[in-house]
Order: sequence, then structure tokens, then C-alpha cells
Amino acid sequence: MSRFFSHRLDKLTPYTPGEQPRDMQYIKLNTNESPFPPSPAVVQAAAKEAGKLQLYSDPTCRDLVEKAAEVFGIAPECIVMTNGSDEVLNFAFMAFADEAHPLVFPAITYGFYPVFAELNRIPYEEIPLAEDFSVNYRDYLNLGGKTIVIANPNAPTGLCMPLSEIEEICKTNPDGVVIIDEAYVDFGTESAVSLIDNYDNLLVTQTFSKSRSLAGARLGFGIGQAALIADLHTVRYSTNPYNVNRMTMAAGRAALVDNDYYMQNCRTIMENRAYTTAALRSLGFEVLDSKTNFVFAKSDRIGGETLYKALKARGILVRHFDKPLIRDYNRITIGTREQMETLIATVADILGDTNPS
Amino acid sequence: MSRFFSHRLDKLTPYTPGEQPRDMQYIKLNTNESPFPPSPAVVQAAAKEAGKLQLYSDPTCRDLVEKAAEVFGIAPECIVMTNGSDEVLNFAFMAFADEAHPLVFPAITYGFYPVFAELNRIPYEEIPLAEDFSVNYRDYLNLGGKTIVIANPNAPTGLCMPLSEIEEICKTNPDGVVIIDEAYVDFGTESAVSLIDNYDNLLVTQTFSKSRSLAGARLGFGIGQAALIADLHTVRYSTNPYNVNRMTMAAGRAALVDNDYYMQNCRTIMENRAYTTAALRSLGFEVLDSKTNFVFAKSDRIGGETLYKALKARGILVRHFDKPLIRDYNRITIGTREQMETLIATVADILGDTNPS
Repeated sequence: MSRFFSHRLDKLTPYTPGEQPRDMQYIKLNTNESPFPPSPAVVQAAAKEAGKLQLYSDPTCRDLVEKAAEVFGIAPECIVMTNGSDEVLNFAFMAFADEAHPLVFPAITYGFYPVFAELNRIPYEEIPLAEDFSVNYRDYLNLGGKTIVIANPNAPTGLCMPLSEIEEICKTNPDGVVIIDEAYVDFGTESAVSLIDNYDNLLVTQTFSKSRSLAGARLGFGIGQAALIADLHTVRYSTNPYNVNRMTMAAGRAALVDNDYYMQNCRTIMENRAYTTAALRSLGFEVLDSKTNFVFAKSDRIGGETLYKALKARGILVRHFDKPLIRDYNRITIGTREQMETLIATVADILGDTNPS
Repeated sequence: MSRFFSHRLDKLTPYTPGEQPRDMQYIKLNTNESPFPPSPAVVQAAAKEAGKLQLYSDPTCRDLVEKAAEVFGIAPECIVMTNGSDEVLNFAFMAFADEAHPLVFPAITYGFYPVFAELNRIPYEEIPLAEDFSVNYRDYLNLGGKTIVIANPNAPTGLCMPLSEIEEICKTNPDGVVIIDEAYVDFGTESAVSLIDNYDNLLVTQTFSKSRSLAGARLGFGIGQAALIADLHTVRYSTNPYNVNRMTMAAGRAALVDNDYYMQNCRTIMENRAYTTAALRSLGFEVLDSKTNFVFAKSDRIGGETLYKALKARGILVRHFDKPLIRDYNRITIGTREQMETLIATVADILGDTNPS
């Protein structure tokens, strides 16, 4: 830290992204990337833009927004595009939370929420999960003007809430914005986008990183009623009006055109998730019922960190969080069937279980 | 605005980017883009990454940072890469300015500075330019712990300060960070990067948008001593660790490899600037001595807004700022020689001067 660093940010502890080691080729099951490459049309669309990079990208993201509006069945003014969904979350925190509207989110969830809160110096309250790691929706009812943030499905647990509970939260908090972070929604959770028309306090955020194989392109978005989205545009135009670059904009649009390809990939990942969950359970693991492209698992036979290290030594990266309540677990991204079979065989080998069922 | 918009941002007026109309094909001389496309190697490098977009980009930007360090003759830990140079400016405002270290910048300069200040709720002071529109460096000496931001060359005037004056500002403000925004430095201004070793309070920001034909890719960077850059990484990792996407990272690296191509383009633009300046002067315009890829010009024969509108009606976009002191002027981006000849002929035509010398 330099002697110039603002005291405003004294308490700031940055987010730690999943490791990207370069010492060897790993099977990367640690950052929830898709094992499937973008579709050929996406690659082509992005490449075509590369020749026009001397020109700024369209700050209105018009072509992309119009296609997204069509796919999601909403009006174009109800969507804002951002440089990854981290950006729309940060914009929403800036726009809708402050001392009078402090943040509330689960104590175990996406690690960036407290970081954004600290960065923007917004007070926040973390509500413990239930013992089974689920989010108890009753904890989020009637919170006055507080700003509520819930990842649905939640990370790193992978558990989801039914839409009826989210609706109840929106309904009982008319004076606070309810942000539903749907980064993993395409792997089996019902989206809250269908509630937008009825709740002016609901903001749904999603990303192209996971289900649409564009983690490396950086594209996320927010959906809400036009007035809410207009506020996010105000913040966007006060931060980085050209936040989405030309290539990513074209790639995102092409990915929406090829929606079927991506939704089929999601189904394959859900199949591989079922396989992985069953195989880990047969090895004695406790595996939460994931609705995401990862599973969260622990075993009485091996510590979380020990397993993480043993897997890494054998060329497989998973994500371990050295935090209270969850340090026995590992978060394992669902890859191809072949990758998951290798994972299972390797875990069995580590456990000395030479005959996994 | 929604009823949820935070009162913190009551005074926020977003930046207005240059218009990007789609009603017809214009000669675009309004957003300071390069008229030259990226080099073939850049297009190829970006396109190659498009096939790997399912994987996150490297949050350390290692390959790009190492190449940039080599080109700029600095250590890799002295550079931070961002999603356009707007982002590094915003990060620097967050990291180094606050109530105790208010911002100081010229009253006529890049319009984003007051926006970033409002967004981050940092008090700021705007110092008037001298009558000839130059920045009087004496106004910036001995300001205690204030955070100073100077665009050099300045926008939209195009005028630059000598390095000796910047050094004097750094020297007399040891307890405040001095941010020198060098977005246009490659068009004839001496960079302050050479001062970095001697001043721990100096941050230099640059962009790939103008001189390196990558406006649509979004890539900027900051250079300073390692401790200062570490603070910017802290903010970056608290905002968007994957702020630079894969394709842009590859494009940026390739652009640095092809540095000669881009520096030759800059020389061509400087020649076209000399032509444009002389031709406008011969039409009776007052044209400031630009060191950028634009000129700032006014004429007693026609109002700034009138000329802007007349040019637009004839298919040429320039930038007019409806602000006190500068509303007689237009900012005209320097394009190809052919574009500038068309501009000059069109201006002459508008003035009814059928025989421009």
C-alpha cells in the first residue's frame, strides 16, 4: 500500500479470484467456466469486429440489447449491459444502497458482495444460512428500505429458492430494491425475470460467463423495470459509457442467436452434474443438491483443504474456501463427462478407494 | 430516475459521449478515433482468442503487462491495465482522493473528471485556464495534500505543458498524488513516464484508444511506482478483477509488438493536423496549437454550433461543447488526408468561400 491510499478504503479486502496457475496444464474445475467453447457463429462475429477496433463501441449497445430483449421477452429499456455481471452488481450497489438503505445478504454467498459494500462504504448485514445451507426467505421479509441481495441459486452452495419465496421478498419490501443474482440460473432454476412486470423494486442480474461460454469476453446484464434500469444507465454513463467492447458485444448478440446450442450445453452439464453428484455420494461424500454448474461437497474421510491439495498435485483444480462453516467443502465445477470421470477416479484414488462404485 | 435512486448521487450528471448516429454514413471527426484500422497482427491475435472465450481472462494480464513494461522501459509491477483509461482514472480517484485530499483540475478539460468526482463524492476545485487556454502550472504548485489531475495534452484545447512544469508540480506537492492523463501523448508531447522513478506521487495514465487504433477494444493503463500501482490493483480486485477481456488483452499485446506501425500512423496524423491547421487558418479560423489528434478551432465568421450543425447536415460530424468560454469552438478529429480535405472544402463551402487557398 502506498502512503497515498485513501483512508476511506482502510477496511477494503479485495476479492480473490480462483487461481489460474501456469506451471502445468490442469483440468480446471475451479472457476465455474463452461467446458464447451463458444459456437462458431460467436467466434466469427467477434473476429469480424476485430478489424473495426479503431472505432468506439456503441455506448447504447443497441443491437445486443434488442436481441436480448427479444430472447427474454422484455422491452429494450428494461435491460442494461455491463462488463461482466460483477459490474452490474457494483452499479446496483452504487445506485440503490447507502446509509439509509443498507445491504442485506446471506452470510455465505458470492464473496464479492461484502467487497462491493466496503468499496462503496455501504453498511451491510450478513444473515446466517439455515443449518442445511439453504437461504431462509423468512429472514428477508419486511426489512423496511434495506437493499437485499440474494444469489439464486446461491454460491458456493448451489442451492436455489423457489420463485414464490422471491416474490414474497419483493412484495414485503416495497421500499427497498431486491437484487436477485442469477449467474447460474440456466442450470435448472426458475428465473425471476417473470416477476419484473409486477415489482418495480426487483432487479435481476445474469451473466454470459457460465451458460453462454463467454467468461473471457466479460458480459453481464441487469433486467428490471425501465426506471430502475435508467438509474443503472446513469451510473454506467458516469463510470464507463463504453464499458462493453465491440467484440464482446458482437459475441454476445451471436450467442443469443445461437441460444439453442447453449441451452443444450446446459442440459449436458446438468446430466454431468447428476453423474458427479451420484458418484461422489457413492464415495461417501455429502453433496448439496446443486442447481448450478458446480457441486459443493465434503467427506468425513478427508479434509477440504487436504482434498483440494491432493487433487491439485494430480492435475485437477477445484476451489477451496478457507472460511468458517465451509472449510470442509470443495466447490467443484462441472465439466465434460470425461473430466468428471477423471475427477471421480482421482478422488477415489486419493481416498485409497480403488474400486469406486 | 426511479424512487430508489440513492440520494448520495443526487448531483450526478453523467458524461455525454460523442454522438454515434446511425441515420447515415458520416465522416466521423467527433470522437477522436484513429482513421487507421488495427494492424493485421492485432486483428489476428484478437480473433484467435475468440475461440477460447469460455475461459476467464488472466486477471494479472501477465503477457500484456510484460510486453508493455518492455516497451515503456519500466518494471511490470509499475503498470496496471484497465477497461479503457476512464477506468484507471476512476480507480485513481477512488484510491487517492477523498475529503482530506480533494481533487484539483483545470476548469476546461476532459469532461469525465467532475463526473468521477461526483460519483465518488469527492470534493473538487476547478482552476480556470489562462486566457490563451493554456494550463498555468503555477496554479498547481504547493497545494498541500490535494490530488491534482491534468490532461497533458489537455482536451479539448489540444495544448500541452512542458515536462519541466509537470516535474515542478510533482516536486512541490509531495503529499498529494499528481495524475497526468496522457490519452493524447503520442501525437507530439513528451511523456511524464520518464519522471516516475523520481516521484512516488506521480501516476501517468494512457490509452490504446487513440494512437493504437483500439477505441472499440477498451484498453487503458496507468504507470507509476509499484506502491501506487499496488493500490490501483487493490481497487481493481475490489471492482472487476477480470476487467480486461481475453480478446482485448491479446489485441493490446499485438499492438505493442507492432509499435512501429502505430507510431508511423501518429506521424501521418500529425502531418494531417499541420495541413488542417494551416487550411483552417487560411479560412480565417483561430486554431489552437494542437499536440493531439484533433484541433480546436473557431471563426468570427460563423458560430460554433452553427458550423457544427452545418457540417452534420453535410455528412461530417465534429464535436461541439455547449459550455461557457468554448461554445464558439469545435473540436475536430484529425482523420486521413482525404477526410481533412473534404472537411476543409465543406467548411469553405459553408462559409460561401468558394476559393479556399
